[in-house]
Amino acid sequence: MPKISDKGRMMPESPIRKLVPYAEKAKKAGRKVYHLNIGQPDIATPKSMIDAMHNLNVPVIEYSHSAGIISYREKLCQYYKKHGIEVTPDDIIVTAGASEAILFAVQTCLNPGDEIIIPEPFYANYNGFATSAGVKVKPIISKIETGFALPPISEFEKAIGPNTKAIMVCNPNNPTGYLYSAEELEVLRQIVIKYDLFLFADEVYREFCYDGTVHHSVMNLEGIENNVVLFDSVSKRYSACGVRIGCMVSRNKEVMATAMKFAQARLSPPSLGQIASEAAMETPDSYFVEVIEEYRKRRDTVVEMMNKMEGVMCPNPKGAFYVTARLPIDNADKFCQWLLEDFNHDNQTVMLAPATGFYSTPGAGMNEVRISYVLNVENLKKSMECIEVALKEYPGRTI
Amino acid sequence: MPKISDKGRMMPESPIRKLVPYAEKAKKAGRKVYHLNIGQPDIATPKSMIDAMHNLNVPVIEYSHSAGIISYREKLCQYYKKHGIEVTPDDIIVTAGASEAILFAVQTCLNPGDEIIIPEPFYANYNGFATSAGVKVKPIISKIETGFALPPISEFEKAIGPNTKAIMVCNPNNPTGYLYSAEELEVLRQIVIKYDLFLFADEVYREFCYDGTVHHSVMNLEGIENNVVLFDSVSKRYSACGVRIGCMVSRNKEVMATAMKFAQARLSPPSLGQIASEAAMETPDSYFVEVIEEYRKRRDTVVEMMNKMEGVMCPNPKGAFYVTARLPIDNADKFCQWLLEDFNHDNQTVMLAPATGFYSTPGAGMNEVRISYVLNVENLKKSMECIEVALKEYPGRTI
Repeated sequence: MPKISDKGRMMPESPIRKLVPYAEKAKKAGRKVYHLNIGQPDIATPKSMIDAMHNLNVPVIEYSHSAGIISYREKLCQYYKKHGIEVTPDDIIVTAGASEAILFAVQTCLNPGDEIIIPEPFYANYNGFATSAGVKVKPIISKIETGFALPPISEFEKAIGPNTKAIMVCNPNNPTGYLYSAEELEVLRQIVIKYDLFLFADEVYREFCYDGTVHHSVMNLEGIENNVVLFDSVSKRYSACGVRIGCMVSRNKEVMATAMKFAQARLSPPSLGQIASEAAMETPDSYFVEVIEEYRKRRDTVVEMMNKMEGVMCPNPKGAFYVTARLPIDNADKFCQWLLEDFNHDNQTVMLAPATGFYSTPGAGMNEVRISYVLNVENLKKSMECIEVALKEYPGRTI
Repeated sequence: MPKISDKGRMMPESPIRKLVPYAEKAKKAGRKVYHLNIGQPDIATPKSMIDAMHNLNVPVIEYSHSAGIISYREKLCQYYKKHGIEVTPDDIIVTAGASEAILFAVQTCLNPGDEIIIPEPFYANYNGFATSAGVKVKPIISKIETGFALPPISEFEKAIGPNTKAIMVCNPNNPTGYLYSAEELEVLRQIVIKYDLFLFADEVYREFCYDGTVHHSVMNLEGIENNVVLFDSVSKRYSACGVRIGCMVSRNKEVMATAMKFAQARLSPPSLGQIASEAAMETPDSYFVEVIEEYRKRRDTVVEMMNKMEGVMCPNPKGAFYVTARLPIDNADKFCQWLLEDFNHDNQTVMLAPATGFYSTPGAGMNEVRISYVLNVENLKKSMECIEVALKEYPGRTI
């Protein structure tokens, strides 16, 4: 039997995935499990997207252009313009989710052995894409005490070495919900210029900013137009994760021409998803007003209730639909498994994401969990009650 | 401006892609261009797939399981059983087209520097996936004189070295249409056992076999269950290339567990495409009877008319919807460009795929082209007339 590859062996497995069998077992045993572990919102997909499928009128479901349907890319430009970002259809390659955009960017820009700096905690799958490209992630810690703000410039400079090729940020952030300020982006801009690095930015939560805050895009950082690559997706924006439509955006012509060769090798992004995503552009602004208000209420519910619990530290983030909270526990992996395996509050429990999966520094995040507020306020309240009771009963509690 | 990656620079660009601007120019100048260059059939997508979209009844278009919707994988097992292949849902990962299945298999099984033997001419994108994984393709030539049959075992043994890790075949073949016999697959089986190699097989054209021939799957080769990885897709089967639904199939549990880590990193295959593909299982057998008869007629039209032209050698392949023909020309790239740039027959011309893109041996395929018979018989006849006239007028003709 032939051996599998080294990178296959090294591919990380998410701690959340390891919990799935325990969640299934809990459900089989008749317990209600509140899923706060995932980025799959319960918000309805806009009617325009569903209608586009109901009205599908093509004799053959054909390949699209490898960079995506041109009319869709043109509408994406209008969308970006509305958000203050000026791009042309040639600056955009439509991808199978932001995931494929990250894959294309890593393959286009980084050699095996190159290093990419990412403030941690970070979205667990970045590690997977880096591993699959033989690239090394150099984490720099952002701290819960500052609400997971961008680490100071000195931390970046300590991490930068001869193999450093890129910095990657997620803004608003998954898993912390942190929204970078204009000043923090300016810090990034200066580092990128000084060391001539690529700056990758995942901005899929752009719309989800609360308390009157404004999202600043890396696409508007002056003087680094050739360094910036943006990853985007309709998954969260329109609560349509399953259409698998994202895009890679850059004004660097060499990067885009090269990424196109990877895009051509896989022929085409999904056509049905593109048709739905193009129709999504008709979604009225009121949809976002309502959705953002709904998420804001959910965040307030979670942050308020979490912070009332003894020994819990929960920042109040300004974006996305996640919080990363510190709990009075010994080990987040064990706690999350215990919640599913051994805990029961009125025949209910919660599934959380251990933060260990969002750190690449060994031992980091051991007493932190990510909570996705993708359930309605009523269910969130019940979930918070579960956590409150659980923290009193958990054998590995530290207070 | 930071430098792009080495593999980005090395990614091959298809000679067909280079012709696209010339085709666009010809169309702008008012000429009718018959597209025999692509694998995008004109056959209607089954009604069941379109209906599934018209009847889409979900509030949220959600992620599916990373390995694909379980009910779809169960139905795929029934489909394979009908084709004499026994597999379970755990042996299947649903992918974004066969393209992603190839990517997962290459990343799961091969290290950078490993070699993969592929009989050439071969599907051009195999080269792209190999390059993106740092894997080296070792071609062994299959000859037009034998209709592109599998090269003799001695040719494989000459190519096998210490870094050889896999053999890859496409059956029925793109770009030659060649259908491997049971005896040829037995040769592969023996080599795979002797050298303990992975055997990758792209069987996306399984249904398209003509003249009473039967398709034999690598999945039924005894004793190499742990070596075989199958790539499949609904793109050609149901003329639905745009849904981007394929799958990777293997009974090797370590391979599948590892491939799942790559699948989880990209979250989910397209949900809309999976819903359509699951519905496609309801397609009546009569659909295939009609489609196969249509392709058979088209093949006969092309093969007969091509072989009547002076100096042309066109095998009569038993499968897929391609022929690779030898023409009395100096250079296929130049000829295909000339057809678009300078040739005009009753204000019509054809776009062909230069075979140079299907060989990795330098200089091979210089007088061969691939013809996709994805147009109806009437248009194919007009296309063949164009080629006949063109071969008399082309300045680089060799007779």
